[in-house]
Amino acid sequence: MLLYADTERNADQLYFSGFHVPDAFISMRVGRRKVGVLSTLEFGRALKESAFDEVLSLEDWQEATRAKLGCERPRAAEVIAMLARKFGVKRFEVPQDFPHALALRLAGLGVAVKPVEGAIFPEREAKTEAETKAIIRGNRCSAAGIAAAEDALRRAVVQKGKLHLDGRPLTSERVREAVEIACLRAGGMSPHTIVAGGDQACDPHCRGTGVLRAGELIIVDVFPRISATGYHGDMTRTFLKGPPSEAQVRLVGTVRAAQKVAIGAIRAGAHGLRVHRRVVRFVEEAGYVTTRGAGAPTGFFHGTGHGLGLEVHEAPGIGKMGTPLRNGAVVTVEPGLYYPGLGGCRIEDVVQVTRDGARMLSRYPYRWVLP
Amino acid sequence: MLLYADTERNADQLYFSGFHVPDAFISMRVGRRKVGVLSTLEFGRALKESAFDEVLSLEDWQEATRAKLGCERPRAAEVIAMLARKFGVKRFEVPQDFPHALALRLAGLGVAVKPVEGAIFPEREAKTEAETKAIIRGNRCSAAGIAAAEDALRRAVVQKGKLHLDGRPLTSERVREAVEIACLRAGGMSPHTIVAGGDQACDPHCRGTGVLRAGELIIVDVFPRISATGYHGDMTRTFLKGPPSEAQVRLVGTVRAAQKVAIGAIRAGAHGLRVHRRVVRFVEEAGYVTTRGAGAPTGFFHGTGHGLGLEVHEAPGIGKMGTPLRNGAVVTVEPGLYYPGLGGCRIEDVVQVTRDGARMLSRYPYRWVLP
Repeated sequence: MLLYADTERNADQLYFSGFHVPDAFISMRVGRRKVGVLSTLEFGRALKESAFDEVLSLEDWQEATRAKLGCERPRAAEVIAMLARKFGVKRFEVPQDFPHALALRLAGLGVAVKPVEGAIFPEREAKTEAETKAIIRGNRCSAAGIAAAEDALRRAVVQKGKLHLDGRPLTSERVREAVEIACLRAGGMSPHTIVAGGDQACDPHCRGTGVLRAGELIIVDVFPRISATGYHGDMTRTFLKGPPSEAQVRLVGTVRAAQKVAIGAIRAGAHGLRVHRRVVRFVEEAGYVTTRGAGAPTGFFHGTGHGLGLEVHEAPGIGKMGTPLRNGAVVTVEPGLYYPGLGGCRIEDVVQVTRDGARMLSRYPYRWVLP
Repeated sequence: MLLYADTERNADQLYFSGFHVPDAFISMRVGRRKVGVLSTLEFGRALKESAFDEVLSLEDWQEATRAKLGCERPRAAEVIAMLARKFGVKRFEVPQDFPHALALRLAGLGVAVKPVEGAIFPEREAKTEAETKAIIRGNRCSAAGIAAAEDALRRAVVQKGKLHLDGRPLTSERVREAVEIACLRAGGMSPHTIVAGGDQACDPHCRGTGVLRAGELIIVDVFPRISATGYHGDMTRTFLKGPPSEAQVRLVGTVRAAQKVAIGAIRAGAHGLRVHRRVVRFVEEAGYVTTRGAGAPTGFFHGTGHGLGLEVHEAPGIGKMGTPLRNGAVVTVEPGLYYPGLGGCRIEDVVQVTRDGARMLSRYPYRWVLP
């Protein structure tokens, strides 16, 4: 098994090496040994912090490659070819996203690489107790962020329908900053926080902009990464300042009920696609229509949830592309309903799949109407 | 030209599509047209925010692929094959890091992909005026972070050699939190800020931990990404609380002088390797010895600088792997000297390569001894 990636962008490399490296580096499994090839800049930390059984010096191996293959500036391919010779390996398994150009160069040097079907570490799907704890910490961080948003919305006053706080208009941007600072203090980074009100909230990946208003549903979706571990939290609550309309009350109630339906259907062995279909049916039976016109879909047009761990979106899926739910998997449960004019509502928590059902890994109240 | 990546982890995709998408998607250049294939979740934003000339609906094309190729769950490869047929394309150029497994599946569907040598967008190296402004904003964000660190160190009091602030020990972690909050307020995220004192600072990628001390050199390296644009800042200052030793004064003075040597040598057409060699020679002539023993290197053992833009490390390099410096390129200039026992010092700014020399894109005082 061979990887060539940094740990910042590549969760497999972080999972395998167990420490943070900002630039791409070579790692491999040879027999049962985990081997990492690190530059001088990372070598010392690798010895102390990494999960490698053997840490090799990139510069030493570049030097050896230069001497042996006679190339002036040995790149990753040449160094890997040298290592393949050292370890007597002719062929490596690689992940799906292994760089194509590197694969071609390796082939030219007589080293074959074969992408594995599916994940290179399928065991990433079932979380260990340590990983589960890291995700619980991620969700505590999310909850701290959502609490900061709720606090700002509670303290806001309404002037001509618009929210004001500390004498200035309360915008999505200001609430987002408060959320992100709260996440930082809780040990995480949440660069894509969503605070979107009114029709903006109907576009689920719109981050939200401008002044927030009374009487509109405001979606707050916080998915921070804990800096120390790389694991994520992911939580969404929907708030409304001032009295809601009856249609809004029914919308939020349906989404929360749909979330309970999903959570009730999750257990080891259940299929993600079936769980999703059950939620879709529940929402339909409650009278909510889904339309998928490109550009302006309405109703419940996204998946029910997705795996969560070192990546915000990872296996398994609970949606159209759903997969079977393995014991120990960690997934979000986040149904939503979106109707421009009425507004959008999404409620999201994180659960672990167990043989007995879903175990809650996130916790935050569901109150949504703020005085 | 064909890409398959998200914009969060892949700077080429962000550069090409001009908007943020968290999950991998298909984009291509056909003739002079930029085409993006986006799911329902992103379609609306793509129409409004992206740089695409044509936005196609992923779901529509999956449906068409299902009908035409008869596959139950069309994946990226099948959809790309359908699009290749639509546009009459037989072969795509792809970047070096195009996923190998996808390339193999495309080959199986009769679509060839060929990785280009070097960068897929070599024009990314020479920054436009808008990009340069975005990087200046990144550096203002860095400067805000460094100012927060300096402020905390200034306000700290020394008790038995250790720094205390507001009645508690002042740790690397506390200073880092102050830096990261300041960066947030300045519009950026700085997840890997370094605040490292004493021997910790001699390991350039050690982020720093534990209580800070008087009389030790403290390296503060802040490289935030501006959330709105994706462009970075990158700046380092070295501080010391209390009176420095003579050796520390000489060390810091030499690093600052080395930085000036580098900045003076940078101009369009200069070679990154030669600029670096000049800095290495300057440091040697000042009497500082570099050793490269794996695990505990000392002296000036890293590069002089690197390109900065949508990635923290991008082309061109100013170091052993240096490349020619093109007009408009933006690079860091960050010599450093590290001697366990004495401490580490790195001073980093960002400049733009012009025909007349280096244009400073970052600004922060160089005072380092704090009372």
